[in-house]
Amino acid sequence: VKVSDLGEFGLIQRLSEIVAGRLPTEAQADLLLGIGDDAAVWRLSDGALLATTDTLVEDVHFLPSTPWQDVGWKALVANLSDIAAMGGAPEFALVTIGLPHDRQVEAVDELYVGLTEAAGAYGVAIAGGDIVRSPAFFVSIALTGRAALDASGQPLVLRRDGASAGEVIAVTGALGGAAGGLRALQGGLDGDTTRLLVKRHRRPQPRLEAGRAAIAAGIRCAIDVSDGLMQDLGHVCQASRLGATVYRDNLPVEPALAELFTAEEVLAMAATGGEDYELVLVGAPEQLERARSESGVPITTIGEMVDDADHGARLLDESGREVSLAVAGWDHLRA
Amino acid sequence: VKVSDLGEFGLIQRLSEIVAGRLPTEAQADLLLGIGDDAAVWRLSDGALLATTDTLVEDVHFLPSTPWQDVGWKALVANLSDIAAMGGAPEFALVTIGLPHDRQVEAVDELYVGLTEAAGAYGVAIAGGDIVRSPAFFVSIALTGRAALDASGQPLVLRRDGASAGEVIAVTGALGGAAGGLRALQGGLDGDTTRLLVKRHRRPQPRLEAGRAAIAAGIRCAIDVSDGLMQDLGHVCQASRLGATVYRDNLPVEPALAELFTAEEVLAMAATGGEDYELVLVGAPEQLERARSESGVPITTIGEMVDDADHGARLLDESGREVSLAVAGWDHLRA
Repeated sequence: VKVSDLGEFGLIQRLSEIVAGRLPTEAQADLLLGIGDDAAVWRLSDGALLATTDTLVEDVHFLPSTPWQDVGWKALVANLSDIAAMGGAPEFALVTIGLPHDRQVEAVDELYVGLTEAAGAYGVAIAGGDIVRSPAFFVSIALTGRAALDASGQPLVLRRDGASAGEVIAVTGALGGAAGGLRALQGGLDGDTTRLLVKRHRRPQPRLEAGRAAIAAGIRCAIDVSDGLMQDLGHVCQASRLGATVYRDNLPVEPALAELFTAEEVLAMAATGGEDYELVLVGAPEQLERARSESGVPITTIGEMVDDADHGARLLDESGREVSLAVAGWDHLRA
Repeated sequence: VKVSDLGEFGLIQRLSEIVAGRLPTEAQADLLLGIGDDAAVWRLSDGALLATTDTLVEDVHFLPSTPWQDVGWKALVANLSDIAAMGGAPEFALVTIGLPHDRQVEAVDELYVGLTEAAGAYGVAIAGGDIVRSPAFFVSIALTGRAALDASGQPLVLRRDGASAGEVIAVTGALGGAAGGLRALQGGLDGDTTRLLVKRHRRPQPRLEAGRAAIAAGIRCAIDVSDGLMQDLGHVCQASRLGATVYRDNLPVEPALAELFTAEEVLAMAATGGEDYELVLVGAPEQLERARSESGVPITTIGEMVDDADHGARLLDESGREVSLAVAGWDHLRA
């Protein structure tokens, strides 16, 4: 079986079964949440430690023309977004860089400048890392964070399996900007609108405040939009054994997209584009209302969870018909 | 400036200055020990969290002919050895795999089997990770561990900058076996001795017990032998602003090496070979004696620290003359 036949999510499932079947339970006693969410959760005496890792590979996750400072920024933000999607506060990062030995040191310097900008902006310490020779340039970051425990010792986090039928689905900010920026770059577009979208693509912002506001509002389910809204929501459906209905006309689409792209292209970017690093929150309407007033970022209701595990995550138009999308989202391992 | 001109250690120094100069100190308030030791140390309310990361890249750190289970084992052990070199106890790992999409899934399965074997043997939880497409196959692991704090809130760890002049240098186990195994494989050798050495190369063991025994004995300085004894000891010299004298005839050389290699080759393997994952311990003679009786592994005295920062780490023969070595150790970034 080739990796490309199984895809990223099939492979993760398979490897998690190897781990679960072979590792003694005492080794995992303090592991409150393992493989399969935005971050792992580990029990501490006075709280929960969150840990996540995310990697950018040149020519796979970023164009070789990307400014190195932006690569450094985005590498950390991809990880920060995972901590945001758990409702946690970030703490420290380990940074691994793989690089061909004929690269210029200045590129690595600039990557570190962008990384340090993001670390400074979100209060993260750069604690260490590793530098290795590699035929492919990559940057891989492991990031820790913190969450509180409730009175019964359970972590107060936003889990993919935390949704209930009838709960409302909402999303922070606006969708599709990052995909629009990438498309504008690939098409050689120019001008103010392109620059705004390219900024969404290269300098995304993690929704740490919204994640913490969601926890404070009693919400216990979220995921970040990294691979595309509908696909990421599909992970919530699978983990929570529910379906999801999303209303096309409710999607908070990045307004600038309409200036450069057709309505159909804009919808595809918003529903499947990925890398916006917005949060999908699932909870009761009054919880979402509370999170909205505390988070400092728009939170838009886009649909609801339905009591049908075979339903998947579906996008409906104004007449209730399912909208078909050309791609579901990103799976970098598929051919 | 090319990466290969600066080398791994020059580049780490340069990047740590970018981080130190740009990151606000409040982001680093709980960072007890940052870039430049075997692991980072982070303050918890009731102890210290250790964190390290290590990466193996195909064709750089392992031969494509290596069984995948051994790659998985060694990837985790390289990290476990860093926790051992801090005197800590390992807790959980995040595993990142970069792989070309035409790879067979079975290779990844086997890598995970070896990884899980090592995790089970040393009580580590596999908490999560990431799988990404990459033109080069690599496995990158971030591993956490724990150490205690003393009464004044300082972590009880083995630091590179913890040596004092006049202290004795000792090393666990035997040296050169891993380098001998690699050389035997490259030379197409066969037989029982080759198999034993190949096992040292492919299935190294982290010295976790010796690291903890060293802490209990009051020792506060160590490094693991990953890039070669003399080079790794050079990091201790630099961090502690001291020199080191090592006596060639005291080196505990892997006995099997003499069957396959000349005396000169054996010395080079023991002094510069790397990847033995033994611990170099620096402390008072009575502390080393105590660690020796508690550690369950031989600990051999090989030299002493000297009060001269320009002295470096030197290897002397029986007449006190410096032994010249063809290479100092591994720096994968140099051309």
